[in-house]
Amino acid sequence: MTIQAAYYTGHKTFTLEEKDDPAPGPGEVQIRVAFVGICGTDIHVYHGNMDARVGSHRVIGHEMSGTVSALGEGVTGVAVGDRVVVRPLDHCGQCPACQAGYTHICHKLKFLGLDTDGALQEHWNVPAHTIHKLPADMSLETAAMIEPLAVAVHDVRRARLQTGETALVIGGGPIGMLIAMVAKHVGANVILSEINPNRLRLAGEMGFTGLNPREGDVAAQVTEITGTKGADVVFEVSGTQPGVDLMTAAAATRGRICMVAIHAQKAQVDLFRFFWRELEMVGARVYEAEDYDRAIRMIADGLPVNRLITDRHPLGAVQQAFEALEGNATAMKTLIRVEETA
Amino acid sequence: MTIQAAYYTGHKTFTLEEKDDPAPGPGEVQIRVAFVGICGTDIHVYHGNMDARVGSHRVIGHEMSGTVSALGEGVTGVAVGDRVVVRPLDHCGQCPACQAGYTHICHKLKFLGLDTDGALQEHWNVPAHTIHKLPADMSLETAAMIEPLAVAVHDVRRARLQTGETALVIGGGPIGMLIAMVAKHVGANVILSEINPNRLRLAGEMGFTGLNPREGDVAAQVTEITGTKGADVVFEVSGTQPGVDLMTAAAATRGRICMVAIHAQKAQVDLFRFFWRELEMVGARVYEAEDYDRAIRMIADGLPVNRLITDRHPLGAVQQAFEALEGNATAMKTLIRVEETA
Repeated sequence: MTIQAAYYTGHKTFTLEEKDDPAPGPGEVQIRVAFVGICGTDIHVYHGNMDARVGSHRVIGHEMSGTVSALGEGVTGVAVGDRVVVRPLDHCGQCPACQAGYTHICHKLKFLGLDTDGALQEHWNVPAHTIHKLPADMSLETAAMIEPLAVAVHDVRRARLQTGETALVIGGGPIGMLIAMVAKHVGANVILSEINPNRLRLAGEMGFTGLNPREGDVAAQVTEITGTKGADVVFEVSGTQPGVDLMTAAAATRGRICMVAIHAQKAQVDLFRFFWRELEMVGARVYEAEDYDRAIRMIADGLPVNRLITDRHPLGAVQQAFEALEGNATAMKTLIRVEETA
Repeated sequence: MTIQAAYYTGHKTFTLEEKDDPAPGPGEVQIRVAFVGICGTDIHVYHGNMDARVGSHRVIGHEMSGTVSALGEGVTGVAVGDRVVVRPLDHCGQCPACQAGYTHICHKLKFLGLDTDGALQEHWNVPAHTIHKLPADMSLETAAMIEPLAVAVHDVRRARLQTGETALVIGGGPIGMLIAMVAKHVGANVILSEINPNRLRLAGEMGFTGLNPREGDVAAQVTEITGTKGADVVFEVSGTQPGVDLMTAAAATRGRICMVAIHAQKAQVDLFRFFWRELEMVGARVYEAEDYDRAIRMIADGLPVNRLITDRHPLGAVQQAFEALEGNATAMKTLIRVEETA
């Protein structure tokens, strides 16, 4: 038997191929993939920025949902027919990070769907330890949002955000918006700084205070909103120098800054402000198992993550799905439907 | 009656003056000053960098020890003859920082000896809440080291340094050296990065691993010493761009960086490393009451802080004391003896 898979083959191109359908190996689970979300990282792959890491014949995709279709030798605790998502991290178990218990940021971490083939195929074999089971009544389409939601849950947890605190989220893309949603779920007052009017409108509909740095001094506005205190927690999700300037300017004394964005270049940081106000900054990368568990529970509790799903395409239209995201000011999250009946 | 006081009068000049000797006001304590240490901040004042803040007729000095000589109205819990040190911070009690319990970094903090007259005078009147009493057998000369030691205690506490961890201290001036001593007292393995050979020699004598960034790649050496892990905690005390580069390069996954130095300009910071290794950075400024209590106890327990005292001058030679520190590669801590019989 063969299955269909979408391969990234370099030069902004995906090619649909028929490939073998291997049985899951020992300790592996085979999943019939239902939905795959397109992540910012996938767009970096599409643009050729990660060719050195992924090569030119790679099935990508890691934000996904599906149904267990076969079990490899020795797998327990999961059954054929279970609806699941995958936490796409495979660690070495030997490095100092793993030894210290931080397996999610293992020094030799394999990210499934980048360092190995991913979810943009009909059947995906993954290590059993990466599986999280879903409640029976959760839609597989919504469940495809669990991976990015787990990122947001991890960020909020790293920042130790508490009920009643004020959170400033700098950057309102999918991850920024999900952080804002989790922050609100936690009981924080949420301010979102964003330049895209469509995203600011969505922020308003979600109950966040949207501020546009092109139209005013966001740090001064945050200071005013908080009665001169500043934001208890700031999430820097913009990856920009103005975002880095804002994060220190808007933070309260002893405020916590969560560094979510990937800054490819060193940025100019106001270290004096760190000293003067005893600020704190924590980096946050991917997620741990408990972040997945919390994300699943939040969606089960009704967190409206599917409001972020703006586009849907079948597996055969992966190429068009990526092309449609170029310079698209209204798109938030695009899903690829892999299983035809899903 | 009059007393002698050394006034900073601008242009790298101190003038000795006879001044009135006011009785302590309500809630104040009068101290007969014994010793005053010269701090890096005092040297900044001497160089004219803080004229806008201190003016041109200011008694500076805040690292001190002395004996209570009179009590103002309503003061309890302290008696004439008590040997004391002063925690030179006066807060407003109203600002968001004070309201949140961070009175030591009050938004309107008055620093005694900068914003008000300080300890370089025979009698010093201070608010009673700033007093810490000394054990009867502690030398007043050694006690003048309590203020800078409390800075180091605060830094180590902010960094949550634990027994058995590896601490890298970047910069081996008085504060860096005191941080290294406290870190060793806590039971950490201490590495000190410093370019001054005299300070590296002292570091070796104190049981720290001294590394010279002019002679090798300190980050690579720390990685090797720690078996590829990196430093659990890094103290950036150098205030330099190479120090900022080193702090992220040498930190372990989930390592904590304590920002001690005053970076007058924004620095280039490797925010990607914060994300990738989930690093944490905390700013640390001055001290809280418990840091003073711990510093006093550590000295009572025998922490050899007086090894850092390299120079002593009488009050009449303040001018010469500051001049002697210019370009001085061997000086560490200079004390001014104010009370002639101390």
